[in-house]
Amino acid sequence: MARSGKERFNDVQNQRPSARFKLTRVGVTGVKKPISIKRPGKTVVLTATIDMYVDLPATQKGSHMSRNVEVLDEAVDRSFSRPVRSLEDLAKGLAAELLRRHDYASRAEVHIAADYFLDKKAPSGRKTTEVYRLTAAAKGARDGKSANVKKSIGVEVVGMTACPCAMEGVREHMKGTHPEHAKSLSKLPTITHNQRNVAMLRLDVPDGLDIEADTLIEIVEGALSTPTREILKRKDEAALVYAAHANPKFVEDVVRDILGQVLARYPRLPDDVEITVRSESEESIHKHSAFAERVTTIGELRA
Amino acid sequence: MARSGKERFNDVQNQRPSARFKLTRVGVTGVKKPISIKRPGKTVVLTATIDMYVDLPATQKGSHMSRNVEVLDEAVDRSFSRPVRSLEDLAKGLAAELLRRHDYASRAEVHIAADYFLDKKAPSGRKTTEVYRLTAAAKGARDGKSANVKKSIGVEVVGMTACPCAMEGVREHMKGTHPEHAKSLSKLPTITHNQRNVAMLRLDVPDGLDIEADTLIEIVEGALSTPTREILKRKDEAALVYAAHANPKFVEDVVRDILGQVLARYPRLPDDVEITVRSESEESIHKHSAFAERVTTIGELRA
Amino acid sequence: MARSGKERFNDVQNQRPSARFKLTRVGVTGVKKPISIKRPGKTVVLTATIDMYVDLPATQKGSHMSRNVEVLDEAVDRSFSRPVRSLEDLAKGLAAELLRRHDYASRAEVHIAADYFLDKKAPSGRKTTEVYRLTAAAKGARDGKSANVKKSIGVEVVGMTACPCAMEGVREHMKGTHPEHAKSLSKLPTITHNQRNVAMLRLDVPDGLDIEADTLIEIVEGALSTPTREILKRKDEAALVYAAHANPKFVEDVVRDILGQVLARYPRLPDDVEITVRSESEESIHKHSAFAERVTTIGELRA
Amino acid sequence: MARSGKERFNDVQNQRPSARFKLTRVGVTGVKKPISIKRPGKTVVLTATIDMYVDLPATQKGSHMSRNVEVLDEAVDRSFSRPVRSLEDLAKGLAAELLRRHDYASRAEVHIAADYFLDKKAPSGRKTTEVYRLTAAAKGARDGKSANVKKSIGVEVVGMTACPCAMEGVREHMKGTHPEHAKSLSKLPTITHNQRNVAMLRLDVPDGLDIEADTLIEIVEGALSTPTREILKRKDEAALVYAAHANPKFVEDVVRDILGQVLARYPRLPDDVEITVRSESEESIHKHSAFAERVTTIGELRA
Repeated sequence: MARSGKERFNDVQNQRPSARFKLTRVGVTGVKKPISIKRPGKTVVLTATIDMYVDLPATQKGSHMSRNVEVLDEAVDRSFSRPVRSLEDLAKGLAAELLRRHDYASRAEVHIAADYFLDKKAPSGRKTTEVYRLTAAAKGARDGKSANVKKSIGVEVVGMTACPCAMEGVREHMKGTHPEHAKSLSKLPTITHNQRNVAMLRLDVPDGLDIEADTLIEIVEGALSTPTREILKRKDEAALVYAAHANPKFVEDVVRDILGQVLARYPRLPDDVEITVRSESEESIHKHSAFAERVTTIGELRA
Repeated sequence: MARSGKERFNDVQNQRPSARFKLTRVGVTGVKKPISIKRPGKTVVLTATIDMYVDLPATQKGSHMSRNVEVLDEAVDRSFSRPVRSLEDLAKGLAAELLRRHDYASRAEVHIAADYFLDKKAPSGRKTTEVYRLTAAAKGARDGKSANVKKSIGVEVVGMTACPCAMEGVREHMKGTHPEHAKSLSKLPTITHNQRNVAMLRLDVPDGLDIEADTLIEIVEGALSTPTREILKRKDEAALVYAAHANPKFVEDVVRDILGQVLARYPRLPDDVEITVRSESEESIHKHSAFAERVTTIGELRA
Repeated sequence: MARSGKERFNDVQNQRPSARFKLTRVGVTGVKKPISIKRPGKTVVLTATIDMYVDLPATQKGSHMSRNVEVLDEAVDRSFSRPVRSLEDLAKGLAAELLRRHDYASRAEVHIAADYFLDKKAPSGRKTTEVYRLTAAAKGARDGKSANVKKSIGVEVVGMTACPCAMEGVREHMKGTHPEHAKSLSKLPTITHNQRNVAMLRLDVPDGLDIEADTLIEIVEGALSTPTREILKRKDEAALVYAAHANPKFVEDVVRDILGQVLARYPRLPDDVEITVRSESEESIHKHSAFAERVTTIGELRA
Repeated sequence: MARSGKERFNDVQNQRPSARFKLTRVGVTGVKKPISIKRPGKTVVLTATIDMYVDLPATQKGSHMSRNVEVLDEAVDRSFSRPVRSLEDLAKGLAAELLRRHDYASRAEVHIAADYFLDKKAPSGRKTTEVYRLTAAAKGARDGKSANVKKSIGVEVVGMTACPCAMEGVREHMKGTHPEHAKSLSKLPTITHNQRNVAMLRLDVPDGLDIEADTLIEIVEGALSTPTREILKRKDEAALVYAAHANPKFVEDVVRDILGQVLARYPRLPDDVEITVRSESEESIHKHSAFAERVTTIGELRA
């Protein structure tokens, strides 16, 4: 399905389709590329997976899909001589360029996702390298001769939640089986189930506002019972596990605390910024997961 | 995260949350259950994966998640004594029951997906058993004392698309390299790339209207270059591969032809029925996929 | 790639290959079928995924792959009139039939995997339906006019492990920060990290010996800190979480305790039976997993 | 499960286990890290996924797993000041270091996998960036005071196969339906099914022998009907699709041609080098895949 439309052959894409419906999104999915990107104080190379679409009018049979990958390849090549500022800036540039090259399209959409590494600290201050997931998206609409493109940024963080409800239940249970220790049990954080939690925060990035992925990761890690760390020597492990139990959280709490922190850290975010926050716990006591989500705007959150 | 809320313990879920935001969806994801379901002339058992959510008001700390799985288990048990009519009817019943058991919730949402098998025929008439994917969803909103629940049905079909654009390109190419065969090349379907296509059709099912998954599968298979079949002896294989090349299709064509067929087969569908159609080709000439989608209402399609 | 080899066409598979190497395994992978199978007191229908191979001599260009799916379809159809005794018996029958239909082959191999459901009990005795993964395999070698086929059975169980090492670390940590509760902390199970553990047991099933999947699942669940359960009301949750902490386990412990139980429960297993046991913890404090495995024979375990 | 074993706490890992069995592999799986690696003429950064194991004697309860990730983190940090020569050299270094730090272990094993990008050419010579999968492994055995470590390298390539059997079948079919074009049909490559093929080559890398991943990728791409390319303008697409049909291949052919090329390109490979070659076609006419594999030694191939 090359379909460049610029060559001498009979151009199948430009033919009239049999069933005349317009299409919402037509494009390529699952394209993998290395991207060179500027981060505070350094340049990093990410392995990104990209989806790129435009809409298609009812009068045209096919989209010229090879143009999508051409647009991407040119941007990738440029990134190695001049690293992009962020994945969302890359997405925005790609969406604008899609509208330029697909003159029949009125909208364009780009999604990018990549693993991303940051140096973090264990409780003792020891350095550990942690993996996160970055996502970026851009949606463009043709507006006369130019294009109106909105971009968004997202982070996905694996951390730990300890269940507050089971902690109360276990406390009662242990008071019953060990009444002689009831006083200590009442005073101390105690046993509960804890597990991997995958928490996600995604929001629009208005022009002129600086929203750093590293800050969003910090917000999400701060809303979990504790972050996870790849290297934990014994004292670090004890400190981190204790800290999680001193800060038990439902998936609901994780979502709400992220929402609260976003409002606090970004007071200048316009009301029409769309935001999605999600927390999913891979429950250690069940074979299924527990899930909470809020999809809303900054304006609604402030109301 | 048991959280049934019916017992004597201090009920953590009913406490006030620290950050007071309502939540869009709270529940369980990835629950697996066997479901017994009535199909034309028989009863089949599917292995289903289910997600179940309700919303949560700002005033309540946690949802009582164990109720979700209880509701599901009761429905599963019932299905073995009295098989459900369809996955979407099951989803609808579950959503209504979620609203009954979560009195603080104003909305409920259920998603179900399962592999599903049908006996089909190879070109020679030989029977082959084919696998499809069924999905069902229901969204309920509390409406005074009762609930208003909308259900939807979806099918995902793996089939084959042969590219019409590359066929023209190869034809020109071969006329150039084999001019002595130009006449035959002009008259016959010829070489092109072909590949697995995953096509999806999902739409609301209004009350009182009968929409059968088997019919939707038929519509989707009919919109591909050809369906795929698990057993193809040599003559069947030749007939099927030839048929695909006599009927080359873009992902765009697949989506449009499904849309056209839905309008033709279901003239009584109300205008407000939401419909999503998608076709994704795992391109044999690329490492990425080609994608087309329409998200709309029946009313817009008729306009 | 139909390739039945029984028809009048020029049979490409029977041609001589250009590079004359024999092949270890040639066949079909990822075939999905419903299977009707007899379990104690009932018949269940599983959605199975099947791989089927034979070897190929250096002198033959291609294997007749459509025969594999034909053999499978016939067995599937038979299972609905007369349910198979077990997945491993089905695998054995398929491997024997592959050798009959591929006369050029000297070996055959079949793998089957399926989700499987059992009714279990929460600590209170309340019924919950739990999902497990069954696997079965068979390897056949041609032996004169008949075939020598060995079969094996496997179970994969999701359960919970609580870390014994972190429990000691947290105990020391809490004694330091709460010296007034040192005595209680020394006497009681306390806080640790716990998480989903995926444990697997697979072993050969010698002819004449009855090894039930349900028993293997029982063995594996018994070797974890606790099994997980899909429905846990508050008291059940407390009891289960407490039980896990009273029985902390490394992945190493899980593997060793399964090995010990297999020896104890099946004293008549021959020495040459091959066995693999694996335990993988999706660590709640790390983004990676902890893993332990033993691959051996019953004879070596007894030594 | 921190378990460093170097600290003052009661060291749970060094305790005697209850069931006294040795374990084959104990370690960490799914660790993600960025790796800086030297390639011909440049340095590239890969996002790698790593598994690291040692064995465990029957007398020891637990392995000190945090040492594995420490060893890895140190190597990753070093790679950014001094890029590693290859993933298999990195794996070898890690395996040797695991044996140094786990003094109770007699064997160590490391697996690394990463996406990898190369600039390739479309038929017209136009540059396209293509994604491949690299794998590396090392297995070490303690040998007195030093360690004996073997390394291996692997590549996974997505390309295209066109079926030779269906081409003959379609030719016969078309001669029957279009007898007036029988002569052209006999002379030209014609219609067949074609699809994505995932082909894999993995072999031991003996000390002193230089085996480049880029060369292995070239060998595998050369054994497919054609490689796939991410950007194909219309003439390129026609040329590539035609080339695939002029070079139809079974999965069996792909495996055999890779084996033949390895023997031809590496005449100095010792006989005891282990090699695995695999080809899997995601059949465009079926919902399942076709598979061929050879697992052997270079010596057996030469026999």
